[in-house]
Amino acid sequence: MPKLPVLEIFGPTIQGEGMVVGRKTMFIRTAGCDYSCSWCDSAFTWDGSAKEEITRMDADEILSELQKVGGENFDHVTISGGNPALFPYLDELIGKLKAKRIEVALETQGSRWQEWFLSIDDLTISPKPPSSEMKTDWDQLDGIINRLKENDRLNNTSLKVVIFNEQDLEYAASVHTRYQEVSFYLQVGNDDLEETDDSQIALKLLQKYEWLVDQVMASSALNRVRVLPQLHALLWGNKRGV
Amino acid sequence: MPKLPVLEIFGPTIQGEGMVVGRKTMFIRTAGCDYSCSWCDSAFTWDGSAKEEITRMDADEILSELQKVGGENFDHVTISGGNPALFPYLDELIGKLKAKRIEVALETQGSRWQEWFLSIDDLTISPKPPSSEMKTDWDQLDGIINRLKENDRLNNTSLKVVIFNEQDLEYAASVHTRYQEVSFYLQVGNDDLEETDDSQIALKLLQKYEWLVDQVMASSALNRVRVLPQLHALLWGNKRGV
Ligand code: SF4
Ligand code: SF4
Repeated sequence: MPKLPVLEIFGPTIQGEGMVVGRKTMFIRTAGCDYSCSWCDSAFTWDGSAKEEITRMDADEILSELQKVGGENFDHVTISGGNPALFPYLDELIGKLKAKRIEVALETQGSRWQEWFLSIDDLTISPKPPSSEMKTDWDQLDGIINRLKENDRLNNTSLKVVIFNEQDLEYAASVHTRYQEVSFYLQVGNDDLEETDDSQIALKLLQKYEWLVDQVMASSALNRVRVLPQLHALLWGNKRGV
Repeated sequence: MPKLPVLEIFGPTIQGEGMVVGRKTMFIRTAGCDYSCSWCDSAFTWDGSAKEEITRMDADEILSELQKVGGENFDHVTISGGNPALFPYLDELIGKLKAKRIEVALETQGSRWQEWFLSIDDLTISPKPPSSEMKTDWDQLDGIINRLKENDRLNNTSLKVVIFNEQDLEYAASVHTRYQEVSFYLQVGNDDLEETDDSQIALKLLQKYEWLVDQVMASSALNRVRVLPQLHALLWGNKRGV
């Protein structure tokens, strides 16, 4: 495959969010995004600030780096970004991971389809709510969900919306209503990216989580949902690479 | 059905732990347990201290109480204890919930089989590690897991072990090795049941969670696991009924 722009490979650690929250996993973070969310917590993947940290790697180089960093202590890899769905040639890496009986998770905002979505074990589509200042391309998203459904992949798929305010919550309800068959996750937004005291971050995030829980509990439009904090942010604040 | 000894019915709130962590749910807590774990966080269900709070209710009474407390804001009910697997006649309640398209989750330590395990959507079997001072009946547990497997219910089943120390972790690894096909969850133990300052509880639990994460990350015997805190304890400390 062409070389993939890789920003970090780390782990094993826990997946802190979403459909396999708590799962022991390795992370591969790709560089580049077609969005620029106002509150992006990995803006370094696309804003140029970590440009010198990007390494171009092919599938075998990535596999050997995973082995070097994670040893024998993993059987699950999460590909994150940025937007890893920018890379059609990711199929080679995914195939090689699966050949080694390693499960693969991937998160993307749902702006682009890739054929290899069909082979991801835990696919999280995370459309961005109004607070991000991005616009959802509903035709694109409809197409993605339909193709996953036609190919019987909904058991391996979830939708996740990050929530910062009430308007985001309305957006989330509309996403959930539109795609009722898809597992639906709500996640507390973290807009406190400058705070460095981990205990302070944890306590503030728990306050926000409680607010979100209260809102969701009071809404009958949001019955079949799961509401989660980001466990890695509760543990390690805004640190990268943990 | 005969009347069920019910200690509390509350919600909607989040399921704070295990296979559907974060799921919006109502709780029904039954009284009575065949175990007496040293660190039981719901000892009031069996130690006599909440005896006057027990109400004997049949299925219809429970349904109408659920409706009264939760209104239209739920489609998932968690039956917890104590040990709800003490009651063979729970099948009637489960059937009535499912007839209303309400999903049912249940947690039990795996000391007894009930036929209605086969109709639970999210069944958590939580064998107790050495720190509990209880002894696992492996024949019983083998029988339960086998029957779930024979009836094609493993997708609706998980094992969960609460961890307080390294010996518990060894026990967990042996459970995981014995039942490799079953989704496996590790959960941080909370032995600080007297603390009343919620922030203190949250920060201490996060420390313990970090310890557990570190242990699991370093163990190749525990690759295919999910490690979780108790979200309700992070939010609300040791309060009951939230
Ligand atoms: S889609 Fe994700 S990576 Fe891209 S800008 Fe938004 S939050 Fe950041
Ligand atoms: S099995 Fe559960 S309810 Fe029973 S004593 Fe142990 S922890 Fe408490």
